[in-house]
Amino acid sequence: MGTACLYEGKAKRIFETEDPDVLRIAYKDDATAFNGEKKEVLTGKGRLNNEISSLIFERLQEEGIASHFIRRLSDTEQLVHPVEIVPLEVVVRRIAAGSIVKRTGLERGTIMDPPVVECYYKDDALGDPLLNDEHIRLLQLAKPAELDTMKQLALRVYDVLSKLFDRAGITLVDFKLEFGRRSGEILLADEISPDTCRLWDKETGASFDKDLFRFGQGDLQTGYETILSRLGGHEA
Amino acid sequence: MGTACLYEGKAKRIFETEDPDVLRIAYKDDATAFNGEKKEVLTGKGRLNNEISSLIFERLQEEGIASHFIRRLSDTEQLVHPVEIVPLEVVVRRIAAGSIVKRTGLERGTIMDPPVVECYYKDDALGDPLLNDEHIRLLQLAKPAELDTMKQLALRVYDVLSKLFDRAGITLVDFKLEFGRRSGEILLADEISPDTCRLWDKETGASFDKDLFRFGQGDLQTGYETILSRLGGHEA
Ligand SMILES: Nc1ncnc2c1ncn2[C@@H]1O[C@H](COP(=O)(O)OP(=O)(O)OP(=O)(O)O)[C@@H](O)[C@H]1O
Ligand SMILES: Nc1ncnc2c1ncn2[C@@H]1O[C@H](COP(=O)(O)OP(=O)(O)OP(=O)(O)O)[C@@H](O)[C@H]1O
Ligand SMILES: [Mg+2]
Ligand SMILES: [Mg+2]
Repeated sequence: MGTACLYEGKAKRIFETEDPDVLRIAYKDDATAFNGEKKEVLTGKGRLNNEISSLIFERLQEEGIASHFIRRLSDTEQLVHPVEIVPLEVVVRRIAAGSIVKRTGLERGTIMDPPVVECYYKDDALGDPLLNDEHIRLLQLAKPAELDTMKQLALRVYDVLSKLFDRAGITLVDFKLEFGRRSGEILLADEISPDTCRLWDKETGASFDKDLFRFGQGDLQTGYETILSRLGGHEA
Repeated sequence: MGTACLYEGKAKRIFETEDPDVLRIAYKDDATAFNGEKKEVLTGKGRLNNEISSLIFERLQEEGIASHFIRRLSDTEQLVHPVEIVPLEVVVRRIAAGSIVKRTGLERGTIMDPPVVECYYKDDALGDPLLNDEHIRLLQLAKPAELDTMKQLALRVYDVLSKLFDRAGITLVDFKLEFGRRSGEILLADEISPDTCRLWDKETGASFDKDLFRFGQGDLQTGYETILSRLGGHEA
């Protein structure tokens, strides 16, 4: 189908379809980290993220969490509703890792109970800085009620996903969400995949997520395959 | 008086007095910036900051804002009540300058209405990072009610000081506060001086504050003298 590519990001391409209320997302095999500084093509990554993200969004919809997701279309594609993306990355952290270790001085691995929610400005030129609620108001990125909704939804997503991964022998350490507006409603959007979560083996603590690529700790595809098969998804 | 120095910081020394309920703060002539990377002795700076901070704390007390301040003792010294310092730097910003320009992409000089309140972790080793309310809860730096009190007091300080400086022909751009606990009460503590505020000439926009030293834009003592004399304080 020769429909127009609306947007090409680092990880996905977004296409129009004949239906103005439906977009097609095609996952790419590109891996990037550190705001695009590290870059590689990893064959199979697009399929793995599409399968895992589809499976997760299906689970979240069963739990009544409204999202852009319509259905998985193919190995590397899914159909979603178009939304106006809120330029915030909403991060939920249950275990200290990555930037919160540097920010707070807490030791990597510290359990945070209840989980901590952070909002980063989705702006590559500024380096995705942390914002507080007043910055979000100042920049008019979201109305206070929208921000409340996003934070509450983020914690509901945590509840669903922590159980899902726990049953699969995986610890959900942290994850990043994006939200969008559709006819005045806030919907969960974008992807939830090992590119956007930290996922550790419950037994060994080994990473199955993008940290494998970030820090060259092992084969990314093997980690992502492990997640997909433990979640009961289709093998290639 | 040979009472013990309890703490020597970059800008002040804190001494015990014979009264356990009273400390003596002695302002130093040392100027430091960028977390101590830039450093110089600037004769007269200690006196200027002591005079300006004393004058400001007197004004705030007239307005009923509870603080550690007791009285100016000498050119470079004041008496205060001891508090348990809350390890947060509470910043109020009315005009975009410094780090908020880098964080938000707003142009320097943008008016922010209402003013924005930010909390930074008072931790030199971590580089005084921005925290959100959930980090503050997580690290147990302040109880939620204490945090509310500090933010509300910070905005009341803004109201008083913006008028005080405006009458002196000076624009209050932003400032940093520290708070402490004394018998369960939150008190304004530390100093309020051109070291901890951005202050611009209302007519020319010229800096009268520590940015003179930070960016080598002119003579710090002249700027601080201007502030003191415009506020009606004692000349040397
Ligand atoms: N339902 C949707 N409607 C519109 N845009 C969407 C939707 N879901 C996700 N997006 C946006 O599509 C883009 C997905 O591409 P990708 O993840 O590759 O971007 P990226 O390289 O991470 O760049 P960006 O900084 O724009 O996120 C993102 O900008 C994302 O916010
Ligand atoms: N009333 C008070 N009781 C106890 N400590 C106080 C009081 N007022 C201020 N302080 C503390 O005394 C110190 C003042 O010294 P100074 O401003 O030179 O410190 P500094 O170099 O800025 O270092 P720091 O990072 O500790 O603030 C600060 O740590 C400040 O928090
Ligand atoms: Mg993305
Ligand atoms: Mg200080």
